[in-house]
Amino acid sequence: MEHKAIAVNQATEDTIVAIATPSGTGAISVIRVSGSKSFDSIDSIFKSKSKINDAASHTIHYGKIYNEVGHLIDDVLVSVFRGPNSYTGEDSIEISTHGSPLIANKIIELLLNQNLRIAEPGEFTKRAYLNNKIDLAQAEAVVDVINSRTEASLRGARNQLDGLLSKKIDELRTSLINASSFIELELDFAEEDLEFIDHKELLERVEKISSEIEKLLSSYSFGKVIRDGVNVALVGMPNVGKSSILNYLLKESRAIVSHIPGTTRDIIREELSIDGILYKLYDTAGIRESEDFIEKEGVLRSRGAIKNADIILFISDVEQDIPAELQQEFDSTIEKDKVIHILNKIDLQPDSDRVGDVYLSAITGQGMEDLFVKLKQKVFGNSSYSEKSAIVSNLRHFQCLKKAKEHLESAKNSILNKLSGEFISIDLRSAEISLSEIIGEVTSEDILNNIFMKFCIGK
Amino acid sequence: MEHKAIAVNQATEDTIVAIATPSGTGAISVIRVSGSKSFDSIDSIFKSKSKINDAASHTIHYGKIYNEVGHLIDDVLVSVFRGPNSYTGEDSIEISTHGSPLIANKIIELLLNQNLRIAEPGEFTKRAYLNNKIDLAQAEAVVDVINSRTEASLRGARNQLDGLLSKKIDELRTSLINASSFIELELDFAEEDLEFIDHKELLERVEKISSEIEKLLSSYSFGKVIRDGVNVALVGMPNVGKSSILNYLLKESRAIVSHIPGTTRDIIREELSIDGILYKLYDTAGIRESEDFIEKEGVLRSRGAIKNADIILFISDVEQDIPAELQQEFDSTIEKDKVIHILNKIDLQPDSDRVGDVYLSAITGQGMEDLFVKLKQKVFGNSSYSEKSAIVSNLRHFQCLKKAKEHLESAKNSILNKLSGEFISIDLRSAEISLSEIIGEVTSEDILNNIFMKFCIGK
Repeated sequence: MEHKAIAVNQATEDTIVAIATPSGTGAISVIRVSGSKSFDSIDSIFKSKSKINDAASHTIHYGKIYNEVGHLIDDVLVSVFRGPNSYTGEDSIEISTHGSPLIANKIIELLLNQNLRIAEPGEFTKRAYLNNKIDLAQAEAVVDVINSRTEASLRGARNQLDGLLSKKIDELRTSLINASSFIELELDFAEEDLEFIDHKELLERVEKISSEIEKLLSSYSFGKVIRDGVNVALVGMPNVGKSSILNYLLKESRAIVSHIPGTTRDIIREELSIDGILYKLYDTAGIRESEDFIEKEGVLRSRGAIKNADIILFISDVEQDIPAELQQEFDSTIEKDKVIHILNKIDLQPDSDRVGDVYLSAITGQGMEDLFVKLKQKVFGNSSYSEKSAIVSNLRHFQCLKKAKEHLESAKNSILNKLSGEFISIDLRSAEISLSEIIGEVTSEDILNNIFMKFCIGK
Repeated sequence: MEHKAIAVNQATEDTIVAIATPSGTGAISVIRVSGSKSFDSIDSIFKSKSKINDAASHTIHYGKIYNEVGHLIDDVLVSVFRGPNSYTGEDSIEISTHGSPLIANKIIELLLNQNLRIAEPGEFTKRAYLNNKIDLAQAEAVVDVINSRTEASLRGARNQLDGLLSKKIDELRTSLINASSFIELELDFAEEDLEFIDHKELLERVEKISSEIEKLLSSYSFGKVIRDGVNVALVGMPNVGKSSILNYLLKESRAIVSHIPGTTRDIIREELSIDGILYKLYDTAGIRESEDFIEKEGVLRSRGAIKNADIILFISDVEQDIPAELQQEFDSTIEKDKVIHILNKIDLQPDSDRVGDVYLSAITGQGMEDLFVKLKQKVFGNSSYSEKSAIVSNLRHFQCLKKAKEHLESAKNSILNKLSGEFISIDLRSAEISLSEIIGEVTSEDILNNIFMKFCIGK
């Protein structure tokens, strides 16, 4: 808590300004200002019916901004937010101008002359956190919300911004604090050899908290997929129809997110969204030995794509045998549970006795629905997350949870080995601190800087 | 006026929606809605403390937008503008969301389900015009304000948006209407052979209006330069130092607007801003005959650049003679008053007796200030426009003024030739209509469409 207090003092001295809309020309641009000098600074360049200093919160004022020599820069709308009822918790304004970068820069220049400074990336959100408008996990979700590219990733980020994860973490902390307060009471009366808490019950409590944390930890791979998408490699011998399958998928997917063209021997990366999940598809060069240098390069890259893949679509067809050598290499290097084995060109031999996970025809579309189902199964695994499950999608949170879990395991051992309460207490406190770091109840300036560095200016 | 009335009815039936901020990811995006269904449509997807339908104008409301199945899309701020106190003159809202294209698209989709439709380019501004918030010349200035890239162009566009040109046009129209009303009165009493106005005085009045229009017409070349910048071609024999001069200019200019790289034989276009004027510099390949095909291409292009140039920097140096042939071709094809003849490398022979308009050294910088002065003289010519002069920068306005002028010349001839008042009257009315077209008192749907087509969506 002390760290936070120091940071508040440092940050809130300055009034900050930044453009909040994407760069470029548009209908309007919005400039954001936050801090104690917000109203004074705008009043000195803005002519309107009344002063912004006298304006009520959440009102909008039309007027004109002039430069130092009295030239009109633009007619604008100024929105007034009085702290603490603002995004940052401080007095803030938003200036809506004609959407020219020149105008926005001119106005920012005029404000800088009023002793404002340019906001650092994420500084508005950082202030919202420092002023207790949101906790740290929520602040981190702001970036994820902005960067969301599919509905599922948006929903995950929105849940985190709405405090779903924070609430879960807070529950766990409360349980931990309850457990350790018993131990500590016991310690205070150590000489009297009192037992305030049944150690068996304490063990149960710690195990319960630990298993809840384990659940959160295991949601991470899913959360990451939701947030960042799934890497899918399409591999197989030449001419088994990898590209046809890719084309079919792209045509079928309701929203093609992007298309990154490459030459035929490059890895072609396409993105598509099925049921809100972003699939990044890597079509690899046919796997085979080649004398051709460029083709060799392609093969090497395709092996890289296989290594990074979350899911591997291993494609063969009803006509070609998979060479024993390749099958062997494949079996020895690839994690089995990542693979979906597609048997393609099933239209040519509907009665083929070759086996696969999915029987497909990229010509007729047969088996495609089955492929979607299998893809989804790989992504979701056995996880049964509902709309309202707290899910971890952030590496920092994952690491804090892992640390908390380790401390709890250590506490469990101490209890089992009937060690002194002091040992148990320290571990429980450490676990609690690790959890607190997630929501930013305890944090260092370094961690904060690291987090907000990833934000865009103006957020 | 009738045209305008029809257009109003067509447009205001629909409630329109569009994203108003530049595309891409940023801190915030703004969605704009205008029309009678604005408040109803937002109330059906937005949960807040109170209904937007009940909100006062110019107030801001925090709340959450949900989709049809109750998923939270985003927490947003909704700004309320009740007609006629809005940009369009209609009931309007602005929705400020987290700056993700995905979120903005989702919300627009939800609004489209409320029977709104996507706004056409410039439709918000078109409605402002149709609802008499601004006239047509002001509406056209909105695009120029947004696209301004230098202070001078911004000031010109701002003046037009503030009605400087419109006021001038209105004065001229009033003078014309006064003049023609005399004539018309005379016509009504034609049989009585009355003369209500001294025809000599009428002639003076018409001549005065005509000369005012002439003044506006002659401001066009300056206005165009202010708005669009000046094309400057750097030409000369190889090795006279064109590129060194270009580099010096770019280093010196306080604001390099952009840099469009090309190969050495391409025309290199650079932009720089001196005293608020945008200079577009075209460095051309050295002019000479060449057998090399690519080089020939370069020479051809450089001749194109010369043709399009507003100013030609003809560069020679103290060491090379200009071949008689080249000088001859140059003299016969290029308008003399466009040319500034630069004698470069003056540091090598300070006492050279060759002549030029500017004696320059791209090495020492000698003569650069003089070059800036000469450039400015070419741009401003003998024009003495003040901050508050009405200036024409729009081709449509120029053409309307030219038509008005022609009608006035015809009226003058009729007066001089003592033709019947009817002829004079028709010309004066025609001139008045041409002026009215500028501010959109009289206009056709075609002209409107043509104008607003150039706008961005959301403005």
